Amino acid sequence: MLTPSRRADSPPASLQPLQALVQDNLVRVNQRILDLIDQDVPLIQQIAQHIIRSGGKRLRPSLVLACAQLCGYAGERHIGLAAAVEFLHTATLLHDDVVDESTLRRGDETANAIWSNQASVLVGDFLLSRAFQLMVRDGSLPILALLSDTSAIISQGEVMQMAAAGDLATSEEDYLRIIDAKTAALFSAAAAIGGLMTDRPQAECEALGRYGRSLGIAFQLVDDALDYAASQAVLGKAVGDDFREGKITLPVILAHRAGTAEEKAFWERTLGEGDQRDGDLDEALRLIEAHGALQATFARAHAYAEDAIAQLRLFPATPERAALEEAARFAVERSF
Amino acid sequence: MLTPSRRADSPPASLQPLQALVQDNLVRVNQRILDLIDQDVPLIQQIAQHIIRSGGKRLRPSLVLACAQLCGYAGERHIGLAAAVEFLHTATLLHDDVVDESTLRRGDETANAIWSNQASVLVGDFLLSRAFQLMVRDGSLPILALLSDTSAIISQGEVMQMAAAGDLATSEEDYLRIIDAKTAALFSAAAAIGGLMTDRPQAECEALGRYGRSLGIAFQLVDDALDYAASQAVLGKAVGDDFREGKITLPVILAHRAGTAEEKAFWERTLGEGDQRDGDLDEALRLIEAHGALQATFARAHAYAEDAIAQLRLFPATPERAALEEAARFAVERSF
Repeated sequence: MLTPSRRADSPPASLQPLQALVQDNLVRVNQRILDLIDQDVPLIQQIAQHIIRSGGKRLRPSLVLACAQLCGYAGERHIGLAAAVEFLHTATLLHDDVVDESTLRRGDETANAIWSNQASVLVGDFLLSRAFQLMVRDGSLPILALLSDTSAIISQGEVMQMAAAGDLATSEEDYLRIIDAKTAALFSAAAAIGGLMTDRPQAECEALGRYGRSLGIAFQLVDDALDYAASQAVLGKAVGDDFREGKITLPVILAHRAGTAEEKAFWERTLGEGDQRDGDLDEALRLIEAHGALQATFARAHAYAEDAIAQLRLFPATPERAALEEAARFAVERSF
Repeated sequence: MLTPSRRADSPPASLQPLQALVQDNLVRVNQRILDLIDQDVPLIQQIAQHIIRSGGKRLRPSLVLACAQLCGYAGERHIGLAAAVEFLHTATLLHDDVVDESTLRRGDETANAIWSNQASVLVGDFLLSRAFQLMVRDGSLPILALLSDTSAIISQGEVMQMAAAGDLATSEEDYLRIIDAKTAALFSAAAAIGGLMTDRPQAECEALGRYGRSLGIAFQLVDDALDYAASQAVLGKAVGDDFREGKITLPVILAHRAGTAEEKAFWERTLGEGDQRDGDLDEALRLIEAHGALQATFARAHAYAEDAIAQLRLFPATPERAALEEAARFAVERSF
């Protein structure tokens, strides 16, 4: 039910092939990251280590490594660039948690909850600066251009998301524009770096960028669906976080659009005005289910995953390509 | 009394010569800045325009322009680089006001007071990213290296300052390290860019960097002194802001160090524990005065201004050099 896109005749997709391919290099990326925050301001070290160690799937640096391998890269530069991408992402997480007033991320206390919002803001700035230092040391102006553009787009997406909070006039198009900017842009850049590093033809760089973008949109769509579907144990965040924060995600947009006047009034009260009472989350889950809004969200995610996979046809059928294809299937089949 | 460094036989120093030299180009920098934030996320536009328009002296972009002129630069690149430096500075201001929970800056309401901390955090991120986009478009890796290092140093300085808040064990050396990072590093980079752009010999680039650094330290020392000396009308911030925020600045460090056990207990209660009562600010002003701590702070600022001026001896005696020398004298003679 959570994974309407998996065909009955295929085995469940997994991130394992991708992880196995990049495993050795990812250890080196992690070491590089820890080396670069191991300096003489203790608070920076504590917070940066906390957020980096609580780390999640390391999808973005894995994409940098795997796409570089896909393009036949055999040097050392992808280690530093993968670290730069992870620093960019980590800076965003720190600021995100401040903006959302979150206290939990993947089951761990957030940095702003342990230290303070102030510390999270400043250490996020530090990590963003470190990301640019790493890119500058790499020395590729096209990659610097891509990642500085991406960094601006991410913050635009975050601002758009904040402005859309509680706004039930947010359309499906607005929503896609937001997740494209706040999530998919960095996935896209991470994938495209492999092509830029190896001076591949423009068509291949663009295909990699579009693979990453469609993968990122699929991941975010499923994240937003799981927030109305998963249990805390598997997702590491409570069901209904987005509901409580008044975030207007696709399941809500679809249920609201299809709802009766009375249902629209429910969404307006709970998300528009933020007036939430006991039982409201259950009612939200019921309405989303009743209108097939989760199914529809998963279906859109599935289409983006298919688009991601289609981009890889330009490349030879290597284990790298197979692992990247499976990562896209995993994005939509996962329940965590 | 506020300006112990001015000799009786010299006219008061002014920023006017510097401002006159860069005036035309500064108009272009301001226009470039407004063009670059004139895009389609309304909240970014509003906040960025607010903070950039409430703008202050534009010292940092003026330094970029004047030092480029000092080095004989005749192209267009300094406009974009001056804008990048101002974007970096503006991003810092937005995040600073969140960290300090400030509601007033130069007499205007702060962005976090008008909009929200959340919006200030995200728009600060956007401006920081825009700064890097501008540097990347300029295309000089040495300048990118200088400014990405500077950006990391600034955030280290901000974190150190936050960690030192209320800590009366902060030494004069700690304090200098903090203001060197959070303020002087960007002044230094702004000045050095002129040398890097024009491929001047390393000694000249270093001299410009040290001019900017010493100028920045002098400015910050005087700012911190005026916070215990100026009236709100001239400084645009209330006397005693630093006291109320528990900031440990040099006047406090010197008065504390010279104080009796009873006086040390006063500083510990008011700044260490943040237990402030009616009359405490007056008592702080009295103790700072009694121990000559303002005079001593101005004297140190004066020494840094002299060091700044000495760095310019490598350069021919042009109107640019004279204006930069006078800016250093102004830094310590001003009462606002």
